[in-house]
Amino acid sequence: MTEDEIIASIKRQLKIRQKTVVVGPGDDAAVVSYNSKEYLILTTDCVVEDVHFSRKDTPLSLIARKAIAVNLSDIAAMGGLPLYALVSVGLPKGPTSKDISQIIKGLQYITDRFSFDIVGGNLTKSDKLFIDVSLVGKVEKKYLKLRSGANPGDLIFVTGRLGGSQIKKHMKFTPRIEEARKIIKTVPVSAMMDISDGLSTDLIRLAKAGGTGFKIYLDKIPVSKDAIKISKTREEVISHALNDGEDYELVFTVDMSLKDKVPDRINSLPLTCIGKITKEERYIGVNSDGKEILIHPYGYSHF
Amino acid sequence: MTEDEIIASIKRQLKIRQKTVVVGPGDDAAVVSYNSKEYLILTTDCVVEDVHFSRKDTPLSLIARKAIAVNLSDIAAMGGLPLYALVSVGLPKGPTSKDISQIIKGLQYITDRFSFDIVGGNLTKSDKLFIDVSLVGKVEKKYLKLRSGANPGDLIFVTGRLGGSQIKKHMKFTPRIEEARKIIKTVPVSAMMDISDGLSTDLIRLAKAGGTGFKIYLDKIPVSKDAIKISKTREEVISHALNDGEDYELVFTVDMSLKDKVPDRINSLPLTCIGKITKEERYIGVNSDGKEILIHPYGYSHF
Repeated sequence: MTEDEIIASIKRQLKIRQKTVVVGPGDDAAVVSYNSKEYLILTTDCVVEDVHFSRKDTPLSLIARKAIAVNLSDIAAMGGLPLYALVSVGLPKGPTSKDISQIIKGLQYITDRFSFDIVGGNLTKSDKLFIDVSLVGKVEKKYLKLRSGANPGDLIFVTGRLGGSQIKKHMKFTPRIEEARKIIKTVPVSAMMDISDGLSTDLIRLAKAGGTGFKIYLDKIPVSKDAIKISKTREEVISHALNDGEDYELVFTVDMSLKDKVPDRINSLPLTCIGKITKEERYIGVNSDGKEILIHPYGYSHF
Repeated sequence: MTEDEIIASIKRQLKIRQKTVVVGPGDDAAVVSYNSKEYLILTTDCVVEDVHFSRKDTPLSLIARKAIAVNLSDIAAMGGLPLYALVSVGLPKGPTSKDISQIIKGLQYITDRFSFDIVGGNLTKSDKLFIDVSLVGKVEKKYLKLRSGANPGDLIFVTGRLGGSQIKKHMKFTPRIEEARKIIKTVPVSAMMDISDGLSTDLIRLAKAGGTGFKIYLDKIPVSKDAIKISKTREEVISHALNDGEDYELVFTVDMSLKDKVPDRINSLPLTCIGKITKEERYIGVNSDGKEILIHPYGYSHF
C-alpha cells in the first residue's frame, strides 16, 4: 500500500463523532472548536534517523529544530499561530549530557523564534533516534485556510524557490508562519497548503481536495540555486523543483480578478504565479515550447 | 544521564513564556487555559517495538490500543476526559493491508470505548515499529488533580492490584478515566497520578512534587494474581507490586479526616489505603514485622 492509500483507508474507517471537529484527518492539520473567534489547530509530524536525516552529518540541534519546524509549516499552511508543543523523543541508549544540550538548543532556537511553549514531552529508548512533535496552534475563524476551496480559474502561487532542499534547506528552513498570515491579510486566498512532499504531489492533493485539476507553466516555477547546482539540464532543474520535496514553502490559490492584489514579495520572500486551477480534473504541465505533459506525484512517499 | 535527570535538565532550560500554561512539563500531563470552567490537558506518550512490546507475540491491534491507552491513563491521572488524539506511526517498509486493518481495529476499540476522536496523524518509515500518540483532553477546573498537593498526614490509596503486568495486563489494561472521575466526585483528593513506572518510582515522584515523604505498609499493597504466580516468596510478590510498573492504576491521597468517605470499591475496582504522607522527606516501607526499610525507585527507567 502507498502512503496515500494507507491514510485514505484509515480516514474511511475512523469516523469522527464530535461536532466540535471542524476539519478531521486529511488536511495539513486538524481544526477543532476553541472560542467564538478562533479555532484550535492540531498537528503532528515526526523525523526519523536514516529516513529524514543522518546523525553523521547533522548536529542534534538541527534535528530537533527540524522536528518542530515541520509542524510549524503545517500550522502556517492553515493560516495559524503556534501555542503549545509536545515533544516525544526516541533516543538510543547512553545519551551524553552534550547530546541533551544539543537537543535543547535546537528546541530553544525555534520556540524563541516563533514565541510558543513546549509544555510536555516524553522520552523513550529506541535503536534509532526519532523526534515526534505534536503542535497545538490557533487561527482566527476568518483566516482559516484549507486545501480544499480552490475554484476553476483561480491562479496558483508559490512562495520562495523550490527544489534541491536535500543539499541544505531541508534542515534549516524557515516555516512560513509570518508570511502566511501576511498573505491572508493582504488578499483573499481560496486554498492553501505547505509543500512538504514536493510540488507535484502536494499540488495534486490540493486539486483533488477541491475536486479540480490544474495547468502550470513549468518555466514559471521558481527554482532554487541548489536545484540548479545539482542539475545538468533545464529539465533536471524543473524536475528537482517539482519532485524533491521538503521545500516547506506554501502553495496557495487566488481568484483571478484579485491577481494584482498579490504582492511580488512578502518580507523578502518572492510570490510567484505558476498557473491556474482547472475544472477538468487533470494535472497538466506546460513546457516552454507550449507542449502539455501530465504531472505525476513523483514527490516523496514513505512506502 | 538517567531519564529523570534528562527530563529535569530539559525542564530547567526550557522556560515557559505564556501565562495560559497552568501546568508545564513535570506532571502526568500539561494543563493550559480553555474556557471559564475548564482547562485543556495535553499529553504525549509512545510505544516502541522491542522496548514496550514484541511484534512476535503481540497483535498490532493490541499495540495500537496500548499506544492510546497509556495517554488516556495520563488524562485520567489529572481527572480529565479525552477529546482529540493525534497518532503518529513509524512503520517498517512493506506494511500489508492486514497490518493496517489491525492497527485501525485497535484504534477503533479504544476511541469507541472512551468516546473521543482521532483527528489527525502521520505515517513515516522506520526500521522498528513505533506508535506515538498525543492526546488533548479537558477537565473542569474544580476537578483538576496534580501530583503535587499531598499534605503530611494524608492517606495514600491505590486502585486495583499491582505487579506482574508484564504477563498480560500491560497490553490490555483499562485506563482509569471513569474511576478517577468517580473518586474525585466522591471525596476531595489532594494529589493524584497514574502508576506507569512502578509504585516505588511513581510514589516517590508524588512525594517529591509536594516536598513530602511517605510511609507505606508493604503488606497492605494490593497485589495481582499474576504477581503471585511469578513469585516464589511473599517478598518477591511485594517486590513485583512495587517495581514492575505498567500497572496503569492510580495512586491518590486524601486528608485523614475523610478516610471513611473513600469507598472500598469504585465500579468493581478496589481502593486500598497503603500508608500515609509524611513531613519528613523519606520514603519508608514497613514490613509485616514492623521493621522499616527505605523504598528506592526501582521501577522502569529508560536510560
